[in-house]
Amino acid sequence: MVLNQNIKVAVDAIVFGYSQHQLHVLLVQQKYGPMQGRWVLVGGFVHDDEALQAAVERELREEAGITVNYLEQLYTFGDAVQRDPRMRVVSVAYFALVNATELKLHADTDAADARWFPISALPPLGYDHDHILSVAIQRLKSKLSYQPIGFDLLPEYFLFSDLENLYCSILGQEIDRRNFRKKILSFGFLEETDRVSKKNAGRPAKLFRFNKLKYKQLEQAGFYFEIKFA
Amino acid sequence: MVLNQNIKVAVDAIVFGYSQHQLHVLLVQQKYGPMQGRWVLVGGFVHDDEALQAAVERELREEAGITVNYLEQLYTFGDAVQRDPRMRVVSVAYFALVNATELKLHADTDAADARWFPISALPPLGYDHDHILSVAIQRLKSKLSYQPIGFDLLPEYFLFSDLENLYCSILGQEIDRRNFRKKILSFGFLEETDRVSKKNAGRPAKLFRFNKLKYKQLEQAGFYFEIKFA
Repeated sequence: MVLNQNIKVAVDAIVFGYSQHQLHVLLVQQKYGPMQGRWVLVGGFVHDDEALQAAVERELREEAGITVNYLEQLYTFGDAVQRDPRMRVVSVAYFALVNATELKLHADTDAADARWFPISALPPLGYDHDHILSVAIQRLKSKLSYQPIGFDLLPEYFLFSDLENLYCSILGQEIDRRNFRKKILSFGFLEETDRVSKKNAGRPAKLFRFNKLKYKQLEQAGFYFEIKFA
Repeated sequence: MVLNQNIKVAVDAIVFGYSQHQLHVLLVQQKYGPMQGRWVLVGGFVHDDEALQAAVERELREEAGITVNYLEQLYTFGDAVQRDPRMRVVSVAYFALVNATELKLHADTDAADARWFPISALPPLGYDHDHILSVAIQRLKSKLSYQPIGFDLLPEYFLFSDLENLYCSILGQEIDRRNFRKKILSFGFLEETDRVSKKNAGRPAKLFRFNKLKYKQLEQAGFYFEIKFA
């Protein structure tokens, strides 16, 4: 069968990290091509013998030297036929989360530079990546209320106030801290550990830890994680 | 830029309809190729100058002669490199809903036959379409609880019991009919009309209608549709 189709398949990754009370996204500066010098999402073309997800993982290693905590397919962008000035490219976008505080970036191969930008201070992005990023931010916000993905953005041990601040800052709204605490602790997958934080002056605060195994067990038993915000 | 990539882009549609108290899916029988005679989802290759969604809509017209009530991207299948025996094909799958009772099918072009199959009595499907279908059924089940998509499967005027039966049959479980009725009516987007059904013997029953405009207004005002099933 001869099929004359000239469409190329790429993957892009929207990698979110959380640090200094702000949501960040990982961007790389293009070394070559029509977007030379512009900041874009990590991404590239899929190899012929490569699974889509393997392609994203390879690009994350090559362009930024990282592996991520959480990766899921977001959406495939291919309605705008001219989204890439070079040729028709359909991009399968993936949504990724990392613990930013533990992250070291290495710009490599195609990327001149790889850097974390706070969502509130982004450079203009190349291609249709502003649009892709906005779809990813929406997904992140909505997922926060029905999946415990906030924990993938925090270090293993964290203060309860870090979790609260993460929710407030990503959702861009105040939350009822007393209800939030009561609700989250009632689920039973958050452990209060013996470790304490010496970060703040004053009384040392207990550090918490997310018990993923416990959450998986609850999930299999039909439990639904859900947090509502007025 | 020369890019040696030999991956083709296709779209597939999982079209659900509801009739005779059962969920149905639209399948077509392949006329040509390695899957000749096999039942598969509606789908085909994307044209170079065609938006992904336009490609799905075209395939639905060409292979089954239909337009759908509801269409959304489901997932892109491209991790299994050999999912198509002919060549590497990445498929962007779309999830669609139609009012099956009003549907007339016309098998055309590539498809020898187009037919509705109840989910409970499917033929073996070609390619990886069993897997794609199972992902779509999961999405449908989960969407029923947080989006009013059940109405896209019913005729414009329906009995309240039709809506109840739809939920029971798709979710594969009994629901608490009294609570369900109370909850659904409390939302305010379901209208009791003056029309009555003469379908059943005995007392004529009022027909209901979904007010989509009202729902959109509620949604914009921050309302969340949500139905829980124990």
